[in-house]
Amino acid sequence: MNLQFPKPLSLYSIEEGNILMPRFDLQNILTCVTQEANTNEVLMLGYMNQSALQLTIETGYAHYYSRARKKIWKKGEQSGQTQVVKTILIDDDQDTILIKVTLPKGASCHVGYRSCFFRQLNCKNKTTDNSLNFLETQKVYNPDDVYILSGKEDLDHNL
Amino acid sequence: MNLQFPKPLSLYSIEEGNILMPRFDLQNILTCVTQEANTNEVLMLGYMNQSALQLTIETGYAHYYSRARKKIWKKGEQSGQTQVVKTILIDDDQDTILIKVTLPKGASCHVGYRSCFFRQLNCKNKTTDNSLNFLETQKVYNPDDVYILSGKEDLDHNL
Repeated sequence: MNLQFPKPLSLYSIEEGNILMPRFDLQNILTCVTQEANTNEVLMLGYMNQSALQLTIETGYAHYYSRARKKIWKKGEQSGQTQVVKTILIDDDQDTILIKVTLPKGASCHVGYRSCFFRQLNCKNKTTDNSLNFLETQKVYNPDDVYILSGKEDLDHNL
Repeated sequence: MNLQFPKPLSLYSIEEGNILMPRFDLQNILTCVTQEANTNEVLMLGYMNQSALQLTIETGYAHYYSRARKKIWKKGEQSGQTQVVKTILIDDDQDTILIKVTLPKGASCHVGYRSCFFRQLNCKNKTTDNSLNFLETQKVYNPDDVYILSGKEDLDHNL
């Protein structure tokens, strides 16, 4: 790997410039929002360090950094539910990446649904009873069929 | 305010249940992804503590928690660029909120663009020259017209 990312310069160049200068945090991590490229549905929230971002660009497949396991993982390395990266966006202050992906096998969430955001909070009259409404009623796959119990890859994507 | 959110119970109830039990982190914070309700465009990434989530539900306007300033702020309190909340979703392990909003004044980003993700990384042949392509070419508003220099409200939304 020999990709080099420029260091952050002035606030103006970060916020208004046309050069990527990612602002990794003190743990060398960016937050990453992942969207389905065709529908704009948000699929998950994860994290990337510099190597995960490099691998994502170089392979075309989404790679994340697990803060809990302190290692890079390729999305789908166990489940087969990979993410093919179509577009990479950066936010105004360059500490959050947004990737738009397609799903060759139709799902992203380790619970078995397409998106990790498969439940909606029921709110009425500016309050809530904390009940959740399932937006997806059918799992795309059965996690028990694809995960080895001793090493679930995707469980801590946003830890 | 008297909304109470249930405490997280078993992994199964968190991931597969129909009750909200937000997993606030050690700083009592959830990550929040904000989407435009009609287009699904991602507008910004922010944070909410329990009070910010309560205020968001009770007022119908997005409130966030600034980790840098250690205080709650209403989106648009200075700029006027508020967010009207239409839907609240929670992810599988209940540590990330997704809100879908409309923009009465047409923008969200403190730089003046509609979305904070107004730049795309130019990638070709599985590498990049780090150049960014502007997806929005016109600012919706001029930040200099609306922000008081001494107290820019929205600058640290994802710090």
